[in-house]
Amino acid sequence: MIPPTDLLNFLRNEDNFLILTHMNPDADGLGSSLALSMALAGLGKRAVLLDQEPLPHLYRFLPGSERFHSFAGLEGLGLTLDDFSNFILVDCNHIDRVVDHRQGSSVKTLKGTVAVIDHHEETGRPFGDIRWVVPEAAATGLMIYHLIRELGMEITEEMATNLYAAIALDTGNFRYENTGAEVLRVAADLVEAGAKPHVIFREIYELWSWDRFDLFLKVLDTLQFEDSTAITTVTRKMLAETSTVPDDTETFVAFPRILKDVEISILLREIDHNHYKVSLRSKGDINVAQIAGAFGGGGHKNAAGCTIRADLETAKAQLLEKVKSSRHALVGR
Amino acid sequence: MIPPTDLLNFLRNEDNFLILTHMNPDADGLGSSLALSMALAGLGKRAVLLDQEPLPHLYRFLPGSERFHSFAGLEGLGLTLDDFSNFILVDCNHIDRVVDHRQGSSVKTLKGTVAVIDHHEETGRPFGDIRWVVPEAAATGLMIYHLIRELGMEITEEMATNLYAAIALDTGNFRYENTGAEVLRVAADLVEAGAKPHVIFREIYELWSWDRFDLFLKVLDTLQFEDSTAITTVTRKMLAETSTVPDDTETFVAFPRILKDVEISILLREIDHNHYKVSLRSKGDINVAQIAGAFGGGGHKNAAGCTIRADLETAKAQLLEKVKSSRHALVGR
Repeated sequence: MIPPTDLLNFLRNEDNFLILTHMNPDADGLGSSLALSMALAGLGKRAVLLDQEPLPHLYRFLPGSERFHSFAGLEGLGLTLDDFSNFILVDCNHIDRVVDHRQGSSVKTLKGTVAVIDHHEETGRPFGDIRWVVPEAAATGLMIYHLIRELGMEITEEMATNLYAAIALDTGNFRYENTGAEVLRVAADLVEAGAKPHVIFREIYELWSWDRFDLFLKVLDTLQFEDSTAITTVTRKMLAETSTVPDDTETFVAFPRILKDVEISILLREIDHNHYKVSLRSKGDINVAQIAGAFGGGGHKNAAGCTIRADLETAKAQLLEKVKSSRHALVGR
Repeated sequence: MIPPTDLLNFLRNEDNFLILTHMNPDADGLGSSLALSMALAGLGKRAVLLDQEPLPHLYRFLPGSERFHSFAGLEGLGLTLDDFSNFILVDCNHIDRVVDHRQGSSVKTLKGTVAVIDHHEETGRPFGDIRWVVPEAAATGLMIYHLIRELGMEITEEMATNLYAAIALDTGNFRYENTGAEVLRVAADLVEAGAKPHVIFREIYELWSWDRFDLFLKVLDTLQFEDSTAITTVTRKMLAETSTVPDDTETFVAFPRILKDVEISILLREIDHNHYKVSLRSKGDINVAQIAGAFGGGGHKNAAGCTIRADLETAKAQLLEKVKSSRHALVGR
C-alpha cells in the first residue's frame, strides 16, 4: 500500500494543517488523526485536530486525545477555518461526513487544498484535491501506518497505540473478514513499537460499568429474529432507567453475531421521538452498506449505519424489507 | 523459540508415534496435535492421535479432527498402547493431565520414549524423556509452528488452520496479555499459508444455538460480585431447562471480564451433586493458576481450572477465601 506522491509532497511541502475526521468518531478516525498529527509534528509542522463533538469518553485513553478541538474550542483559540489553507480529512471522504447542519454551509467550502485519506467506499460525489481512498484497506490506521513509514518517520509508542487501536476496532479485534496477513503483520510491528494489545482491548471492550451491563441485559431482552436478522432496540427510557448514555451502547450491535443463525444484526437507538440511529453488522457476503445506503447512510460491507425518521415498528419493517430484497439479490446471483 | 535438538532428532529418526493431549481438550491441544501429526505424515511417518473423550463438537471444524481415536477406538483398530514405543504429549506435561482413573494405572506407564511439548507451568513432577516446556509461549500452537519450520516442512493450509485456531483460542483472539509481536507475526504467516481468521473466529465464538443463548442469559442472572470477583453458576437443572450440554458453557467464564470492576471471573459448573468444575479467568497480575492449584487444579496465570467437592455456597466461600489471600499477597509485594 503505497501513498500517492501528491499526498506525500503535500505533507512534506506544506504547513499549518487542519485535520478533520467524521461525526460520531471512532478509534479508527481518532487514532488515525492523532498518529498523523504526531508524524506532522515530528516533521516540524503545525497540525490542529478538529472534531465537532466532545470526544467520546471511551476513546479518551488514546494518547494525545486531549488535543482535539471542537469548533467552539477552535474559536476559543482565536482561530477560524479561514486561518487554515491546508485540510486533511481522515477516515471519511466527503465533508458531509464531517459537519452537519449545525455548522452551517460555510464550513462545507474549505478554502485551500483538501487532502482525503480514507478506506470507506467512494460516495460518488468526489470531494477534495488530493484523494487517497482505498476501500480494500481494513482500517484508515493501516494507511496512516504506511504513510508515516513512507515519510521516513519512526513509529513512536504513542503513534503505535493510536494506530493499533484504529486497526483493532475496525477489524473487531481481528475477527472480521478484513483481517488479512497484512493487518496482523502491521499489528505486530505496532506492538514492537510499544502498543499493548491487552491494554488497548481492555480500554475499548472491557471497561463496562454495572449500569452499562444492566442496559445490555435490557437490550438483549428486546431481541427479535426474522429472516436471519437479529434486531435489538435502545430507547431513551432504557438509557434513563439505567443511568447510561448513548456511548454506552457502543459494540452492542456486534453481540448477536455470536448466534449461528444470525447473519445480520441491527440495533436501533432512539435519538428523539420517531427518530432512530441505526447500526448494522453482517457476516460474510451480505452488504449492509447497501441497506444503510437506501436510508441515506453508508459504511462498509459488514458494518454500516444510517438514521430513520419513523416510529419503531415502521422503521423495523422498512429495514427488514430492505434486508429481504438485499438477501434475495444475493441468492439470485 | 528454537526446539531442542533431542526433540528434533526423536521426530526425525523414530517412527510410529502416539500423540496424546490433555483431558477436556481445547483448540490449542487439538490443533497443535493435528498440525504435528500432519507434519510427521509429511515426513513419511505414522502418527496416531489419541484422545480419551469424544471430541467436543465445537472443535470438529479443525481439519483432520476425525482422525482422533478414543482409547476404545484404538482397541477397535486392534491396537493397544503396547503397540507404540514413541509417545508425544502435546499441550500438557504430565500423564496425569491425559488420563484419569477410568483408564486405570496401566496407562500411566507408557513403555518407550516419551516427548513432552507444552507451554503450561511445570508441575514439579517431571514426566517424560524429552521435555520442551516453554511457559512463556502464548500457545503450544506457536511452539509447533516453530517445530514444523525447524523440521524444514512447508506449513499447509490444514496445518495453518489448526495452528491459527490454537493460537487464537489461547490468546482470547489476541486480547490477553500473552499477545505479543511474535504471536501476531506467526498469525500473519499462518494467514498467508491459508488460515482464515474470520472463519476460525466464527467456528470458535459465533456458532451459538438459541438454546445456548438462553443458557447464557440464565447464567448472567446468577452473577454475584465480591472482592473484584464475578462468580457465575451453571447447574444441571439450567442445562436441562435449556436443552444444552456442558460444552455450551465454553467461553462463558470470559464474559464478565467486560466489566471494569471485575478482575477475576469464576464460573462454577455443577458436574454432580456437590461436585463443581471451576473455571477461573483474571486480568493483569492476578494469578488464578495459584488459586486453582490450591484446589488441586492448575493452568496459566490468567486462565486456570479445578474441581471442588462441596455444596455450592461452601465452594464459593472457599474460592473467595483464596481470592482474598491471593489479592492480599499481591498488594503486599
